[in-house]
Amino acid sequence: MDDTIEGPLRPALEFWFEFASTYSYPAAMRIEAMAHREGIAVLWRPFLLGPIFQRQGWRDSPFNLYPAQGRYMWRDLERICASLDLPLRRPSIFPRHSVLAARVACVFAAESWLPEFVRQVFQANFAEDLDIARSEVIEACLERVGQPGLAHIEHALESANKDALRSQTEQAMVRGIFGAPSFLVDRELFWGNDRLEQAMAWCKSPGLGQSA
Amino acid sequence: MDDTIEGPLRPALEFWFEFASTYSYPAAMRIEAMAHREGIAVLWRPFLLGPIFQRQGWRDSPFNLYPAQGRYMWRDLERICASLDLPLRRPSIFPRHSVLAARVACVFAAESWLPEFVRQVFQANFAEDLDIARSEVIEACLERVGQPGLAHIEHALESANKDALRSQTEQAMVRGIFGAPSFLVDRELFWGNDRLEQAMAWCKSPGLGQSA
Repeated sequence: MDDTIEGPLRPALEFWFEFASTYSYPAAMRIEAMAHREGIAVLWRPFLLGPIFQRQGWRDSPFNLYPAQGRYMWRDLERICASLDLPLRRPSIFPRHSVLAARVACVFAAESWLPEFVRQVFQANFAEDLDIARSEVIEACLERVGQPGLAHIEHALESANKDALRSQTEQAMVRGIFGAPSFLVDRELFWGNDRLEQAMAWCKSPGLGQSA
Repeated sequence: MDDTIEGPLRPALEFWFEFASTYSYPAAMRIEAMAHREGIAVLWRPFLLGPIFQRQGWRDSPFNLYPAQGRYMWRDLERICASLDLPLRRPSIFPRHSVLAARVACVFAAESWLPEFVRQVFQANFAEDLDIARSEVIEACLERVGQPGLAHIEHALESANKDALRSQTEQAMVRGIFGAPSFLVDRELFWGNDRLEQAMAWCKSPGLGQSA
């Protein structure tokens, strides 16, 4: 396959992620390099799973509510991270409050430094067991990518920007998203880190019958 | 990779499946040919998801209880079947009562004709929209693989054989299984049709750090 052939009509890949979500971690760490190799544009779409779970009657992560699923998920994540050479330290709090990180990512979603900031936050949560609910942790993630931490956090906390994240989470629901990570290519939905390759293939050649 | 090298210590792949389960369908259709190519022995382990879901407080399939998940699952299954060239007709009843089919599969699990019988049942449910709860449908599936339908069904309905399926479902729970299809390699659990390749790779070379 010749990856240099790109049509102007090739759709972008929307990457819907949640900073507290375990399977969003490997997806966030690998998506930019993969998309670059494939010549696919990525749109970064942070959102919150909490309000979506609440509408389903869940007041906690399903991985906490259903212990067999939870045990499996942690082991599966361990295998995935090992196969990708990603460090993994099981967070001492799960799921962590991700609203501050999500607000920052939502406001600055189109900035060139955003992907690296997102990776810093995921790494803090899943490799360093740092509490991403704390302002200082997010501030440090911003500074590590050369951004003014305090100023950006203050900006993200303005009321219009809080609304932006709320509205993005609404959008996720409208578009049928119920878990993270999710990938959207036009209206085609793919759910789970293990569907990233398929979502990318769909960008290049949409339609049924492609190899999975 | 030389698939002819087989150690006597290579573990078998336990295939835990449920006839009503959508993702069990593609797994059941492809596992035998794949395992044959890889030189891996498959142990067929039918079980019932109903009792497992009930213990989690679910009185129906999660795909019915949570409509967004359900919509996604049917579309995802459509993509998977298209990529495998498998026919798919959405069953007019979902999930179908699978206890009779599971009892038959449980009693005759070690027979050489069992894999083909299993495929016949999945095809009836997911490609022909036949009601696998009906004795005549299971009888026809048995006869298509050269077996005496009525006699085998009568045998499967003996009380010791009903107990065998009940105990196999208990075993599934004890081993951490919460969904179907699941694959067990020794005590290592893999969940979902999309983990079949990984489970097979684990048979050949168990351990973390293998490529996913």
